[in-house]
Amino acid sequence: MPPRNPSIPEPYAGRIARVRGAMGGRRLDAYLVFDRMDQIWLTGFTGEDGGVLVTRRQVVLLTDGRFAETADLEAPFARKVLRKKRGPEATARELKRCRAARVGFDPSHMDVKTFGELRKLARPAKLEPVSGLITAMRQIKDAGEIAAIRRAIRVAENAFVRVQKWLKPGRTEREVAARLVYEMQRLGAQGASFEPIVAYGATSSLPHYEPSDRVISADCGVLVDWGARVDWYVSDLTRMLWPGSIPRRFATVYRIVKEAQERAIAVIAPGIKAGAVDRVAREHIRKSGYGKQFTHSLGHGFGLDVHERPGLRKKSDERLEPGMVVTVEPGIYLPGVGGIRIEDDVLVTETGHEVLSSLSKDLP
Amino acid sequence: MPPRNPSIPEPYAGRIARVRGAMGGRRLDAYLVFDRMDQIWLTGFTGEDGGVLVTRRQVVLLTDGRFAETADLEAPFARKVLRKKRGPEATARELKRCRAARVGFDPSHMDVKTFGELRKLARPAKLEPVSGLITAMRQIKDAGEIAAIRRAIRVAENAFVRVQKWLKPGRTEREVAARLVYEMQRLGAQGASFEPIVAYGATSSLPHYEPSDRVISADCGVLVDWGARVDWYVSDLTRMLWPGSIPRRFATVYRIVKEAQERAIAVIAPGIKAGAVDRVAREHIRKSGYGKQFTHSLGHGFGLDVHERPGLRKKSDERLEPGMVVTVEPGIYLPGVGGIRIEDDVLVTETGHEVLSSLSKDLP
Repeated sequence: MPPRNPSIPEPYAGRIARVRGAMGGRRLDAYLVFDRMDQIWLTGFTGEDGGVLVTRRQVVLLTDGRFAETADLEAPFARKVLRKKRGPEATARELKRCRAARVGFDPSHMDVKTFGELRKLARPAKLEPVSGLITAMRQIKDAGEIAAIRRAIRVAENAFVRVQKWLKPGRTEREVAARLVYEMQRLGAQGASFEPIVAYGATSSLPHYEPSDRVISADCGVLVDWGARVDWYVSDLTRMLWPGSIPRRFATVYRIVKEAQERAIAVIAPGIKAGAVDRVAREHIRKSGYGKQFTHSLGHGFGLDVHERPGLRKKSDERLEPGMVVTVEPGIYLPGVGGIRIEDDVLVTETGHEVLSSLSKDLP
Repeated sequence: MPPRNPSIPEPYAGRIARVRGAMGGRRLDAYLVFDRMDQIWLTGFTGEDGGVLVTRRQVVLLTDGRFAETADLEAPFARKVLRKKRGPEATARELKRCRAARVGFDPSHMDVKTFGELRKLARPAKLEPVSGLITAMRQIKDAGEIAAIRRAIRVAENAFVRVQKWLKPGRTEREVAARLVYEMQRLGAQGASFEPIVAYGATSSLPHYEPSDRVISADCGVLVDWGARVDWYVSDLTRMLWPGSIPRRFATVYRIVKEAQERAIAVIAPGIKAGAVDRVAREHIRKSGYGKQFTHSLGHGFGLDVHERPGLRKKSDERLEPGMVVTVEPGIYLPGVGGIRIEDDVLVTETGHEVLSSLSKDLP
């Protein structure tokens, strides 16, 4: 008889209970987790080669020998199954062992090849796609998660201030991006939450530009979109840098973007639709004559991943709830001229909202 | 009538022709590529949100407005289809437009959700899983790819030399990792090919350790496993650093690992089985009394991805061919004590092999 699991600590006990609740509602005997961030959220186990099987009674971690020590340390309550290599055999064996008949999984997090193999090997167990079960739960952050996000924001902001002091005309976009990541790591980040966007001059009109060897001079602005990962949670910010003085046209556009952002943030509160927040910013930019130059949605949730639900999108009917953390990042992009974007991180509270980021948005 | 494609430049013309050849052999009317590195290899288009549809007559790039400019620049020969968002609708529409009845795709690179939606939307077209078609082709590198890999190795090596000079007792593992990435980027890398492993002292016995705030002193060795990405191609190297003098036991183990690596490299040539190369190193380590402490396979191919075929694994019957580029990285891991690994990058040539990396392996 296997030893009984040590009792599960919070926050994992609560999260596992919620997954079991969802399993009950769908008459599932087990639920399989293959996404690494879902796995970290559910069990605390950070190992790269992992999988979690939640049954009514057990939590099973599937990993390999390289991560055995980490698994014991991070998720002592889980039963470990060490498999030889990433593959469906061990998973199928565990499904048989626990006699699961209906097994849920997220079809966005399993590839067609693994699914085909696992479906055969797991018979007579039946695999049932359940989309976005944990994704939806992860929208609402608890106190520990919010604290980690605050740390990730602080590290990103402090690194930015250091880079701002270090920056001078003659540096390249790539040097700035590298320096930013380096400073974030020196300040305790695991790394960047994504490769920073550092776009000088006209290239700042490309929302997803990758830094190049373009040399920064005092003539134009630099758009910097970056974030840190601290204790697995991320931040996501955008600021403009002006190595010289600001061309008048950009000052006007900057003011419009800033006003749009402030107005959108002002309406963030529990119960408001995500789409309504987007429309507040969009309407302000449209009335200012730049409606067609705001080419993306207003923002997105984040946490363990840089892009999570909810999306602050024009047509979204999702209602904001306390504990959601979203970016608010309107932009105006003038092809061939340059772009302006300002991005802050905002927590939905019981009574309204709290802006978690604090870097100045004033023009120099 | 759509404008005719500009003629396709090399190396993409040859690669697309090979994919079309493989389609013919499998009676496929079209082949869908969803893996970003497969897409770069096949078309040169580096955009993040992409997909490629190869038909007998056309090459279609599926992407969104953010990457339109990049797509025109990098793959002018392809027809662009800009879709509103990542999703199967545009793909299905294109499949109908080109009247494809049988459409191949790699089941490792499509998730179950996308597959389910695309299968319905694309009817009557039938989706046919074809595993590893492009993966297999990518094993053999052409001159341009080998040149890019050489650059990625050179950047990684030069950054390592800089970090070696900068390193002194008191630095943390994380600082070393951050500095290494920073120096690689300053030397022209897009970034690290993976988060560097910097493992001091006993932690070096964990093959996939993540750098922590552990402070490096002169008492023990530091295992550094790192690589650069340059022009999309990667390098992958491992060296040991000794901030102080080397404990005698480690000097012995180091010599064994180095001999094992040299012997394995010596047999690399076209026609030899990948498994035979692994066994040469493994046998040497076994005879030296550390057989159980060499816990992973000897090496792996790399190129656009850090892990590609062929795997240098004990039981592999795959034969090496000219143009393959592999790591050779034996290791001995003593739990609680420390580990030694040495890793170089080796090209299989027409007549034998060439070691592409050149950092010294001599003990200080």
